[in-house]
Amino acid sequence: MLFIPADRIRQQSFNILRAWGQSEAHANITADILTETDLRGIDSHGLSMLPVYEEQLATKLNMKPDIKVVRETPVSALIDADNGLGHVPGHMGMSMAIAKAKVIGMAMVTVRRSGHYGAAGYYTDMAAREGLIGISMTSSRGLAMVPTFGAEPVFGTNPISVAAPAKRNKPFNLDMATTTVAVGKLKLKWLNHKPLPVGWAVDEQGQPLTDSARAFKLKNITPLGGTRELGSHKGYGLAAVVNMLSATLSGAAFQPLRLQREDPAAPDNIGHFFMAFDPKLFRDEGEFEHDMDEMLDYLRTVKPTDPARPVMVPGDPEYQEREQRLRDGVPVPEMLDELVRKVCTKSGAAYVLVHD
Amino acid sequence: MLFIPADRIRQQSFNILRAWGQSEAHANITADILTETDLRGIDSHGLSMLPVYEEQLATKLNMKPDIKVVRETPVSALIDADNGLGHVPGHMGMSMAIAKAKVIGMAMVTVRRSGHYGAAGYYTDMAAREGLIGISMTSSRGLAMVPTFGAEPVFGTNPISVAAPAKRNKPFNLDMATTTVAVGKLKLKWLNHKPLPVGWAVDEQGQPLTDSARAFKLKNITPLGGTRELGSHKGYGLAAVVNMLSATLSGAAFQPLRLQREDPAAPDNIGHFFMAFDPKLFRDEGEFEHDMDEMLDYLRTVKPTDPARPVMVPGDPEYQEREQRLRDGVPVPEMLDELVRKVCTKSGAAYVLVHD
Repeated sequence: MLFIPADRIRQQSFNILRAWGQSEAHANITADILTETDLRGIDSHGLSMLPVYEEQLATKLNMKPDIKVVRETPVSALIDADNGLGHVPGHMGMSMAIAKAKVIGMAMVTVRRSGHYGAAGYYTDMAAREGLIGISMTSSRGLAMVPTFGAEPVFGTNPISVAAPAKRNKPFNLDMATTTVAVGKLKLKWLNHKPLPVGWAVDEQGQPLTDSARAFKLKNITPLGGTRELGSHKGYGLAAVVNMLSATLSGAAFQPLRLQREDPAAPDNIGHFFMAFDPKLFRDEGEFEHDMDEMLDYLRTVKPTDPARPVMVPGDPEYQEREQRLRDGVPVPEMLDELVRKVCTKSGAAYVLVHD
Repeated sequence: MLFIPADRIRQQSFNILRAWGQSEAHANITADILTETDLRGIDSHGLSMLPVYEEQLATKLNMKPDIKVVRETPVSALIDADNGLGHVPGHMGMSMAIAKAKVIGMAMVTVRRSGHYGAAGYYTDMAAREGLIGISMTSSRGLAMVPTFGAEPVFGTNPISVAAPAKRNKPFNLDMATTTVAVGKLKLKWLNHKPLPVGWAVDEQGQPLTDSARAFKLKNITPLGGTRELGSHKGYGLAAVVNMLSATLSGAAFQPLRLQREDPAAPDNIGHFFMAFDPKLFRDEGEFEHDMDEMLDYLRTVKPTDPARPVMVPGDPEYQEREQRLRDGVPVPEMLDELVRKVCTKSGAAYVLVHD
């Protein structure tokens, strides 16, 4: 494992994005978001995405998109992302929601014809840092989640994030997939020759699958809840809400139908949802933040099952990871470093991740 | 089991609410909501709540509340419910959100100092019937949900509902507790002398509890996900969001702190959250509803695990139940009928549930 300082992750990402044709302004925003995501420990959505994006350059991704606001009211906007990566239209979407919420109290921005936008929690954090409550969701490219009673996947990991400011505490930030686990977790069990717990994955008949090799190959994961008995219909329902607010509301794709109607190699037409609103619509200045502090402080002091492992609040694991990685660097597996070197060679970007 | 026509459930509820001092206007709204909830099969939140409300009459519930809008903007309102039942301020809250959303595109109403408001899905359905997307959440009175890594309860069942209109289909309506199961399910297992699945309940040390007798006595239920391995931190995070948007945002109570600071017999100061917004902010007339139909139709035809049990969409079980109960009556256990008779005797309300 290599440990890479954040500024080097940022520079490497920037170099590659520029080599792929992204404008300087867009590459700056995208590299910032990828780096911040790696700092927070969300390794699946940072630097490691660059080799994935590379595969999409040929037919799916427009690296010089003409991002446009196509509808707008005092409380809303619709952005057409012109099939580029999702980070820049995402940043623009939440920035617009924040600016409008500061004028009128709340606003909602949706984005259509977009690509992967990284970690949902990045965007909600933007709102919380401005004293607003932020919500973000996104539809997904791949089909992985098998609905309750079903035997084939219909949604992706369809994440939801909600963030809110406190006074003494760092912002509350829930950032969760509506699936039980990410596909990466199946891989880890397989690499370690371990079976899966019942409730992570299902087979082609929709029955629980614990063989990690078969499960990683099939990639049929369950909605949050895992099994009907433990409430998987709720995770499935939440995933449908995410698709509805991100994709149906913006006019982006419902992926199973897109795959039936269009060339699978065509752009994914992913949709995002952003909302920001001001607690001062309901409370006096500082009251909401004070009560958030009281709730967060209380939750952390709840009697724990194991005194060595206290109860946490949403955001705590990421803040802890961020502190450690700012100090020690971002862990990058040698295999990822190899992939990044290959992306550099192919794109002509300067390789700067590790000085040899 | 008795099977009671809906209009009789309604009349019985109305009689009791009036005998308790509720105004005719308030009793009409409350009885409508209780009846509709029973029709949809949510037995825990309809007629069966009347004996529970009776216990709260002495010190918690104000049956002649002065419900007031205490803050208002074009996109928002804050309602003070004056410690009455939650149905009337809930109905008022969603009605205000709908009216404002029809003018400006979206609106949010929160309610503080309220009581039990019944099923969240009733209010979101109001929005969907008006062509709007509706969201509702509520904080809870009791402490039942034990957070991940914790050994004592901090939240109640903290439900979330999201509803949206379609064209050919009935509205999409997700209405879910953020706990794995309701306390009533522990009781059912206990009555049937069956053990609980791992992941429904925990003991005083936060360890999984499968003894249904002990579990029903203790009432320590898990967040959606059930165990840390299956993602209970996500259900816990969602419950915290519900408390934040329902209680912290409106200035209602965070119950663990209320119980430390106030007489437990004082009013519960429950908070509710309502939101309505117009899909026409982003799509042309009818486009959203058309795409909802396509998604809902697709989901119902997903290859099922068992052909006899097709994949459903949120709202389907309640619509099926409603159809059947309109035809056959609402099932009322003899024990509940006995309790209702006692409530009538004590309050002086005319008993009309069953003609003997």
